[in-house]
Amino acid sequence: MQLSARNQLKGVIKDITLGNIMAEIVVELPDGQVVVALITFTSSERLNLQIGDEVTAVFKSTEVMIGKDEQTG
Amino acid sequence: MQLSARNQLKGVIKDITLGNIMAEIVVELPDGQVVVALITFTSSERLNLQIGDEVTAVFKSTEVMIGKDEQTG
Amino acid sequence: MQLSARNQLKGVIKDITLGNIMAEIVVELPDGQVVVALITFTSSERLNLQIGDEVTAVFKSTEVMIGKDEQTG
Amino acid sequence: MQLSARNQLKGVIKDITLGNIMAEIVVELPDGQVVVALITFTSSERLNLQIGDEVTAVFKSTEVMIGKDEQTG
Amino acid sequence: MQLSARNQLKGVIKDITLGNIMAEIVVELPDGQVVVALITFTSSERLNLQIGDEVTAVFKSTEVMIGKDEQTG
Amino acid sequence: MQLSARNQLKGVIKDITLGNIMAEIVVELPDGQVVVALITFTSSERLNLQIGDEVTAVFKSTEVMIGKDEQTG
Repeated sequence: MQLSARNQLKGVIKDITLGNIMAEIVVELPDGQVVVALITFTSSERLNLQIGDEVTAVFKSTEVMIGKDEQTG
Repeated sequence: MQLSARNQLKGVIKDITLGNIMAEIVVELPDGQVVVALITFTSSERLNLQIGDEVTAVFKSTEVMIGKDEQTG
Repeated sequence: MQLSARNQLKGVIKDITLGNIMAEIVVELPDGQVVVALITFTSSERLNLQIGDEVTAVFKSTEVMIGKDEQTG
Repeated sequence: MQLSARNQLKGVIKDITLGNIMAEIVVELPDGQVVVALITFTSSERLNLQIGDEVTAVFKSTEVMIGKDEQTG
Repeated sequence: MQLSARNQLKGVIKDITLGNIMAEIVVELPDGQVVVALITFTSSERLNLQIGDEVTAVFKSTEVMIGKDEQTG
Repeated sequence: MQLSARNQLKGVIKDITLGNIMAEIVVELPDGQVVVALITFTSSERLNLQIGDEVTAVFKSTEVMIGKDEQTG
């Protein structure tokens, strides 16, 4: 399935924390920056997510804000 | 101001498209991957966003899905 | 690619409206209910979306509110 | 109150899972497809949500992605 | 209909800007702070929104970040 | 850092509830209305959030719905 989402960042799972309902998945990008995804525990189990998995962090462009340092303006 | 958002990716603006109400901001990360932000035209003007600006793409971890190729599982 | 998103509703595109930056995609579910997606014009072109296409409306469970009529309580 | 949200899908609660802070509400649509909502425990209590309740799953069109199988294009 | 959304702020519409697909609605709260909502043009027409209308700005708690000035910590 | 987000409401933290993964932060606005933010436990610790802190609730305009009472139309 091809997705309309503009943001599809490839990386590797570095850490997983499981709660009752939620799971926190930490993905490291090739440049060393990190993306955190909060998904349901059920989804984490269904995808059988493991540390070291190559995954894609997917999010819509409507969800992204831009921050700019006042000095750089 | 420090922000609770876990996802704060640094990059450089590569492209800006302006509509009546919305503006589409394309940010390139150091690893060459791209993040697109849809913000309001008003915000784009207020921050005086320009191609080449160093900016931060900010989004909450609740907005991020994980995709995994069936082969890598 | 398998997606963590819990909500993946199958339907058929009934209507497409294109703006400068945004596109509004109306998807009819098998039960006749309708889901509307606002995506970027660029994504609509990239997926080559057409009326009649079978598609999946994907959204995270964190985005969904529950409404309940006061009478049914 | 009338809501601007374009997506208001009617269904019946099939399952409820409660955590410390979050509650996961599973709603079945008339066509058998399922919508999952992650709301706060507090909201679940306030609306007195119960299995079997007729409810509406409400979400904005900006939150919805479109997926399309590569074969159908 | 009662809504699970924790955030339901009452205010008055101060400004409306219409685009092809989107509408920007500016709502002033009683304390003078302002909330901006980006909804579809179609929804704005359906609710017949007008400057001066008393409305409620509704959003989920999962969408809200917290910012804190470094001095106040 | 200046943020593109149109919605930046100032208030004071009235309550904090901590879960395994999530934290619920209740912020009171000057007019007595309340905004609830669900952030990660990790972010709550990182910002060292405490009851009484002056904070800003930040959210994008794309996340806000408008509700209107049928009588006021």
